[in-house]
Amino acid sequence: MPGIAEIVLENIFQRRSVRDFNSRIPDRSMLTLLLKAAMAAPSARNRQPWAFVAITERGTMDSLAHGLPFTKMLYQAGAAIVTCGDSSIEIQPDAADLWYQDAAAATENILLAAHALGLGAVWSALFPYEDRSGHVRKILGLPGHVNPFSIVPVGYPAGDDLPKDKFKPERIHWERW
Amino acid sequence: MPGIAEIVLENIFQRRSVRDFNSRIPDRSMLTLLLKAAMAAPSARNRQPWAFVAITERGTMDSLAHGLPFTKMLYQAGAAIVTCGDSSIEIQPDAADLWYQDAAAATENILLAAHALGLGAVWSALFPYEDRSGHVRKILGLPGHVNPFSIVPVGYPAGDDLPKDKFKPERIHWERW
Repeated sequence: MPGIAEIVLENIFQRRSVRDFNSRIPDRSMLTLLLKAAMAAPSARNRQPWAFVAITERGTMDSLAHGLPFTKMLYQAGAAIVTCGDSSIEIQPDAADLWYQDAAAATENILLAAHALGLGAVWSALFPYEDRSGHVRKILGLPGHVNPFSIVPVGYPAGDDLPKDKFKPERIHWERW
Repeated sequence: MPGIAEIVLENIFQRRSVRDFNSRIPDRSMLTLLLKAAMAAPSARNRQPWAFVAITERGTMDSLAHGLPFTKMLYQAGAAIVTCGDSSIEIQPDAADLWYQDAAAATENILLAAHALGLGAVWSALFPYEDRSGHVRKILGLPGHVNPFSIVPVGYPAGDDLPKDKFKPERIHWERW
């Protein structure tokens, strides 16, 4: 059995974007684990300026897909998680412009946790696109202080998406450029 | 021994920001693993618009710390990684405004990989602050097309920083807001 470091690193290396799903719906305990992973992300000044909508209802999933580009996966996936920034938590102006970085770290944790649990997932951007945000806001009934950042379809992989080896040593500069 | 999912999830839950380091310098193979984890992050249209500077030289670390707020950890840490966006890779305008989301996912992977390897790390924002970016650009000799996004001091933890339990079930909305 490999050690903890190898297992964690392999999970990071092997994670891939999954766009083909069977119809099985992840249960609420699995989705809660993904959200617990999301909320374990770091945030500027530890303000945790996030909120999440987890969706499994077929009608809502289809309505979301209907108004979004690049998200036909929502028609297949059993669930989706929308990560949002909540500007009512953003009370200190000096970190307010970092909420989307916090939301990005939370989204990455969802993807890594999903892969570890045998689920597939893929990150679709909502922010900073007003048309996408507005559509999601309307379908999910988000109040004005809640800003949708990403939508991640989650489900059981149907295909054989393979991880890509994206390591490029030439992108590393030692000590300075 | 717990299963793979438990190990990966515990690594996400137990990761914490480390700000106290001893003077030991992580070796280049460890830093390369962190950078391999960074490059395994997802990116918009899989464009991987990132580049990294890894620093271990004391003089450079001190110079960086000298002009940045919230980064006195750089005086102690053995190393640091600056994650950048490279706009010369950003050739498709439709995804150009997502480079910082890709860089955020890469930064989160660095933190998680560091924790798995027994290293400590903490995310400090450079983007979107022109003063911080400009200072780092000058010290590291970054060309104009390279935009510093985050600086992560990395080293061996000296203190007993404990993980926070940040799970807040009230931040989860099921099916709609």
